[in-house]
Amino acid sequence: MIKKAKDLPIDLEPNLKGGKDTVRIVNILQKNEMYGTGRLFGVSIIPPGGSIGQHTHVGDFETYYILKGKALVNDNGNICELGPGDMTQCKEGDFHSIENIGDVDLEYLAVILYSVKE
Amino acid sequence: MIKKAKDLPIDLEPNLKGGKDTVRIVNILQKNEMYGTGRLFGVSIIPPGGSIGQHTHVGDFETYYILKGKALVNDNGNICELGPGDMTQCKEGDFHSIENIGDVDLEYLAVILYSVKE
Repeated sequence: MIKKAKDLPIDLEPNLKGGKDTVRIVNILQKNEMYGTGRLFGVSIIPPGGSIGQHTHVGDFETYYILKGKALVNDNGNICELGPGDMTQCKEGDFHSIENIGDVDLEYLAVILYSVKE
Repeated sequence: MIKKAKDLPIDLEPNLKGGKDTVRIVNILQKNEMYGTGRLFGVSIIPPGGSIGQHTHVGDFETYYILKGKALVNDNGNICELGPGDMTQCKEGDFHSIENIGDVDLEYLAVILYSVKE
């Protein structure tokens, strides 16, 4: 399967998890294209001042990889400024939040995978 | 978990799957940090003229998302030029290859997830 950038479906999520402004999600894979492994695989774009509110991951875990801009992340109580090339992973049972504290769009890869019961 | 860019472990893979030159892989997650869901989650960097040779995915599937540069991809016989923001997914049982046909490093996200038996 090949998809050009212009053909990737976009979701608009206002006040996500109680956060500020609207998050734009470019879906690299749609859920049915993840073949049961997870429920999100995309690039999230948060405008300056926007955020995703604090929430806990149950039954899955989420990885962020920063592509552009400046983020303030709260990873289960560990608060840190992140920039391009930095990553954070919210493990199952942990909480996190993210805020754009820069003056340009914050862009980051976001992937949510289901925990495997081994 | 938070990791800064400078702390992400890098693998060097010369002549990967019979390809040209050396691929540099920045591991966003290491395999044990994927909790049984897959075996690769990183950014691959291929120098101009370099490539990863054709290979088939058995028991897993791989998604590429182009970050920088220009790629020629063969996705199971579908040959296409890809640039930033484009994606390709090699499904389980399919083959693919990728070559840097630009004059700067080709950088892309590469994620290999195990097929889930539902």
